[in-house]
Amino acid sequence: MSIITENNDIEDIKIEGEYDGIIELDQWFDPKAENSVLLILNQRIKLDHSAFEALWNSYTIKICADGAANRLFDYYRDSDGKRYHPDVIAGDMDSIREDVLEYYEAIETTTVIKQNTQYSTDFTKSVNVATLLLLGIDLNAVEINEYDGIHKLYQQADKSQLKDIPLLILNGIDGRFDHTIHSMVQFYALRRQDPYFKMCFLTMSDMIILIPSSKKGYWLKLDKVKPLIGNCGLLPLAGPNIITKTKGLKWDVEDWPTSIESGNVSSSNRFVGENCLIACEESIVMSVELKWDKITQHLIDESE
Amino acid sequence: MSIITENNDIEDIKIEGEYDGIIELDQWFDPKAENSVLLILNQRIKLDHSAFEALWNSYTIKICADGAANRLFDYYRDSDGKRYHPDVIAGDMDSIREDVLEYYEAIETTTVIKQNTQYSTDFTKSVNVATLLLLGIDLNAVEINEYDGIHKLYQQADKSQLKDIPLLILNGIDGRFDHTIHSMVQFYALRRQDPYFKMCFLTMSDMIILIPSSKKGYWLKLDKVKPLIGNCGLLPLAGPNIITKTKGLKWDVEDWPTSIESGNVSSSNRFVGENCLIACEESIVMSVELKWDKITQHLIDESE
Repeated sequence: MSIITENNDIEDIKIEGEYDGIIELDQWFDPKAENSVLLILNQRIKLDHSAFEALWNSYTIKICADGAANRLFDYYRDSDGKRYHPDVIAGDMDSIREDVLEYYEAIETTTVIKQNTQYSTDFTKSVNVATLLLLGIDLNAVEINEYDGIHKLYQQADKSQLKDIPLLILNGIDGRFDHTIHSMVQFYALRRQDPYFKMCFLTMSDMIILIPSSKKGYWLKLDKVKPLIGNCGLLPLAGPNIITKTKGLKWDVEDWPTSIESGNVSSSNRFVGENCLIACEESIVMSVELKWDKITQHLIDESE
Repeated sequence: MSIITENNDIEDIKIEGEYDGIIELDQWFDPKAENSVLLILNQRIKLDHSAFEALWNSYTIKICADGAANRLFDYYRDSDGKRYHPDVIAGDMDSIREDVLEYYEAIETTTVIKQNTQYSTDFTKSVNVATLLLLGIDLNAVEINEYDGIHKLYQQADKSQLKDIPLLILNGIDGRFDHTIHSMVQFYALRRQDPYFKMCFLTMSDMIILIPSSKKGYWLKLDKVKPLIGNCGLLPLAGPNIITKTKGLKWDVEDWPTSIESGNVSSSNRFVGENCLIACEESIVMSVELKWDKITQHLIDESE
């Protein structure tokens, strides 16, 4: 039987019992992992410069997908004329401007990788590049076929050593709506193909992550992020789902069928404690509202 | 067997054969219907003033959901100090500012309807108000219980005469992500409860509509809108679906299973002719990219 419980606004929620995993929300703001990937897509960068700078400095690998290089080029230039230099610009290069391409081709630390195949998107090309960099492959030292060399290298690579890599995506949401939904598709594609990535989309409203399907549930550890966040939603974008248990939400549910079609969708919910358990039959998308004024300060503090 | 066909960029596509209905895209830009509803939600209004003015003047019923009244109040004031006056402001009024409430309460043509129940959202309260206005009910002449009077009136009303009412929603997308998905939920809720509404979400990137499930398909009639639009996507947000037939897309499909989870999603597709047939087993969300520079001119031309 399906149960909805309204809890107090503040409760003490400890990680306890059996569970399938822990998801730390701070891993994307302050990635302490040895390796982490920041991927920028082709929309205007709306972040405050101090927030952007802190994020940029805390990620070990930075990649622009095609026209995202224009956005980075246009976004910021310091008083010496120096811009941000990504490790790689990857894609079919149908969006990058000539002047931007010329600028970055002259930068020694930036590698431009053109891949013509239309069987994968600039997003996938960039994520495949990230995998190769994580494996320590020097992309300047190997020959890369301009049609689909990256895809071939990616397929041949042994990825078994890779684990728990924070992957933060800027500009994946709030543009064209089919692009936004295509970003949601990536959650499921990546979980299938590259489960070592822990992906998060960052917007000026939210952070958006995937809670994997599980029997016992995943604990979200809010920790330092708790004061920086507001409402949250559990969004069954892949189809009807059953949230078997939550613990730590204002409105907790048990054995709750959720779907876009039925209208049973947990939106405008919120966290009552420092931790929150979520168990669902199929992987579910979660949005967590961000208080950007506080996020920016947190990013600056953590990067110092 | 599933078939994908790549067509020429331009083809002559005529409405022909048997079909279940026609959806004219221009109905939301130039609503020629006797009645039409413009509903504004609580986000900053980003439209050009000339585009907004043209839309405003072409809709017969204008409603602000709660805090949307702040946005309308702040958006524009002419040289005489006159602002836009909606027919109704509806919601639980937890977002409207005191000064805005005072201003609109003094406007004779604007009715403020406070509804405290938390069993429906400001969106639903506003759409229920729209239904009552469409039925010619004078909301100033009836007594409305402040808790859920609108819902009760709505439930009692005979809606059988209502048909094909364009309903344009501003600010339903691109805010908090759980709100965006909640907007998608409304497509399915409205189709169930108030099928007389033809709803469209307008953003600075797209128009987003629902293509109802059907055996023979719906013809999208692009007509005057054709030069104003770009890419489109068919987005299976309610779960796995089968697109049984399309005719008039760059990449047409037949018996094509589509789902977010599988990654088979038709995005970055486009129209090759003046019409396009879409048949799918379950109702599917469609996004159509807008060229706003041209849309604004179209709106101005049509409103003259």
